[in-house]
Amino acid sequence: MRQSHLFTKTQKSAPKDEVAKNAQLLIRAGFVHKEMAGVYAYLPLGLRVLDRVKQVVREEMDALGSQELIMTSLQRKELWARTDRWSDKKVDIWFKSELKAGGDVGLAWSHEEPIGDMMRAYISSYKDLPTCVYQFQTKLRNEMRAKSGIMRGREFVMKDAYSFAAGEEDHDKMYEGMKQAYMKVFKRLGIGDDTFVTFASGGAFTQFSHEFQTVCEAGEDVCYINREKGIAINQEVMNDDTLKELKVKKSDLEEVKTAEVGNIFNFGRQKAEDIGLTYKDETGASIPVWMGSYGIGVTRLIGVLAEKFGTSDGMLWPRSVSPFQAHLVSLAGGNRDLIAEADRIYDLLKENGIDTLYDDRDVRAGEKFADADLIGIPMRLVVSEKTVAAGSVEVTNRDNGASQLIPESQLIERVR
Amino acid sequence: MRQSHLFTKTQKSAPKDEVAKNAQLLIRAGFVHKEMAGVYAYLPLGLRVLDRVKQVVREEMDALGSQELIMTSLQRKELWARTDRWSDKKVDIWFKSELKAGGDVGLAWSHEEPIGDMMRAYISSYKDLPTCVYQFQTKLRNEMRAKSGIMRGREFVMKDAYSFAAGEEDHDKMYEGMKQAYMKVFKRLGIGDDTFVTFASGGAFTQFSHEFQTVCEAGEDVCYINREKGIAINQEVMNDDTLKELKVKKSDLEEVKTAEVGNIFNFGRQKAEDIGLTYKDETGASIPVWMGSYGIGVTRLIGVLAEKFGTSDGMLWPRSVSPFQAHLVSLAGGNRDLIAEADRIYDLLKENGIDTLYDDRDVRAGEKFADADLIGIPMRLVVSEKTVAAGSVEVTNRDNGASQLIPESQLIERVR
Repeated sequence: MRQSHLFTKTQKSAPKDEVAKNAQLLIRAGFVHKEMAGVYAYLPLGLRVLDRVKQVVREEMDALGSQELIMTSLQRKELWARTDRWSDKKVDIWFKSELKAGGDVGLAWSHEEPIGDMMRAYISSYKDLPTCVYQFQTKLRNEMRAKSGIMRGREFVMKDAYSFAAGEEDHDKMYEGMKQAYMKVFKRLGIGDDTFVTFASGGAFTQFSHEFQTVCEAGEDVCYINREKGIAINQEVMNDDTLKELKVKKSDLEEVKTAEVGNIFNFGRQKAEDIGLTYKDETGASIPVWMGSYGIGVTRLIGVLAEKFGTSDGMLWPRSVSPFQAHLVSLAGGNRDLIAEADRIYDLLKENGIDTLYDDRDVRAGEKFADADLIGIPMRLVVSEKTVAAGSVEVTNRDNGASQLIPESQLIERVR
Repeated sequence: MRQSHLFTKTQKSAPKDEVAKNAQLLIRAGFVHKEMAGVYAYLPLGLRVLDRVKQVVREEMDALGSQELIMTSLQRKELWARTDRWSDKKVDIWFKSELKAGGDVGLAWSHEEPIGDMMRAYISSYKDLPTCVYQFQTKLRNEMRAKSGIMRGREFVMKDAYSFAAGEEDHDKMYEGMKQAYMKVFKRLGIGDDTFVTFASGGAFTQFSHEFQTVCEAGEDVCYINREKGIAINQEVMNDDTLKELKVKKSDLEEVKTAEVGNIFNFGRQKAEDIGLTYKDETGASIPVWMGSYGIGVTRLIGVLAEKFGTSDGMLWPRSVSPFQAHLVSLAGGNRDLIAEADRIYDLLKENGIDTLYDDRDVRAGEKFADADLIGIPMRLVVSEKTVAAGSVEVTNRDNGASQLIPESQLIERVR
């Protein structure tokens, strides 16, 4: 894509009311637009990152055999009343509205009840189990405070998956499989080493739950970790019993701030019993389905990446989710021959399927480099009088700052 | 995908309260799930169709140089109050809610105001124009009645695009370009011959508008058409003046029911003036931007396809949006050798990149064919004792019913 064509422009500063580093950076770089506190639009560069993060998650879900669908934002009151989660006293983050035709509707903050209810149409026998579904959905949560940029949105994209099993063994297998799939996702996004599975209390609705916490200064949680042993304990369950169970001393643990990037819930058979989701076993008896619910905050993850890999100069995206593979910067100035050379290199990259942002703008070199730093594509290619004279392109791996003149004949191989 | 793995099952009948043929068919075939009147979830088969329709639209938008983004569902009251469209008296389909932190929010029924407002951050000079953006967004509209299935949803997916130009000439060029892109979309979806551009009144907010109306018995509109001359007149503007202007006699027009599949609005400079979106021209003067707004009802289109190409036996998808390229039906029964043969053909198709639904279920042939008819993939492949003995696969083009035994060596070429 030609950068001269991109409608967004980088900005020197973020809105004054924006206090989160992640949103400040992403607004300045033109990835997101702040509609209101905790509510952000995704502009072309941001949407590319969002789509790539979703694709990583999708591949890991598909690999588990989970099937993608998409539920609705409007939800029926009766489904949530049945499990006693309609009242604002029970769930304090509802957005609710009214139908002109009469009656209340809820706006989706979760899909546990609607998905469980829908599955009643498709699960009747043990032969229909196990099965697993997932979606990428916009959730609306009426948060009292929303000061963490895209890390805690009133409107955000979540991947939520739901597993259904006939017995505990299958259920546990799916729960474990999902846990491993999550760690693969975080590894592919470059935060595997900093992400820990922690045991957490599940609240009133689950038997137990596990959180995935990523070490991150801007996180809202606190964990006690031991990297060598791969142990992480949430502050909320940090006590002598837990230490004893995990055979670890408090002095061996490091207190760190963390961001919750995923959360998985084991409902056992309770949720299905509440919803009325049952299957018939071999003897014809009706039995509540074993259910699990598995969330990844997709847009929050992007915020965590911005917090961890961003500096005051800009972003540095992991290759797996960078909006483009390469950022081609032309320093041709007004020189027509150089412009033609840069255009030719851009065409060469396109023909070889390298997704490239091409800075063809007629602005100063300093502005181009500053914008490239801010946008944060990890591989930068420069075409200038010097590189053209050498029949080469300057390739910089922004991960390590290493810069090299690469002959044009080797360029594609190198960029790949 | 193996059909035995698909969690949805076909159903003999749709819910009793579902009166629209499109939703009845799509529910029976397992494409959608009805959450409430006018609110449908998209299950794996339905999501595939939705994604393919979106991809067709996306390709035509990208070809125009329009840039994809995604706005938010939660909207600020102040933006709509500024243009006097917040009041329920002015816009009677709002869903509204309240922030726990205080203040009203609107749920997106349109994005004209928020997009126009956002563009103030990116458009300042004539050099920033022309530009065009689009999104696929879930719209929420508080319809009093919602009895047309997915053809009139309270929650539905729309593609909306917005053009911004510095002068009338560029503006008209974009408006015309969009009109042609829309006709390309409808042609690719197999409804080009039945879709007409009609002149319509634009209401208080536009200078004028054009509708795209598809001949469809279940449509809510009425048009007077002349296929030879390519003329279509909306009932609402059907009068002597219009007939005179178009040089056509009423007796030469056929009255047909139609569904509005697209609508484009020419705002001139009025909308930008209301929003405060201006650019500086060469002399430094501030001038309101020329704006256009362009909608395609993506999920409604799927409803129209179901109405036009569906029978009581099931769907017949246009190839461009079919959930799978081929439906492979194994009639192996319990015969292990035949099962192995069918598996081998499935693998062959997969290896050659043919997206295939493989009915590997252990059910009667009659049930398999009935389900294949209902699901509506246009190319059906059958593996049976007879076809294996002939070293062939039976290929049926459901478009015309033609059935042929194709030798395995020619299968891939034929299916492509």
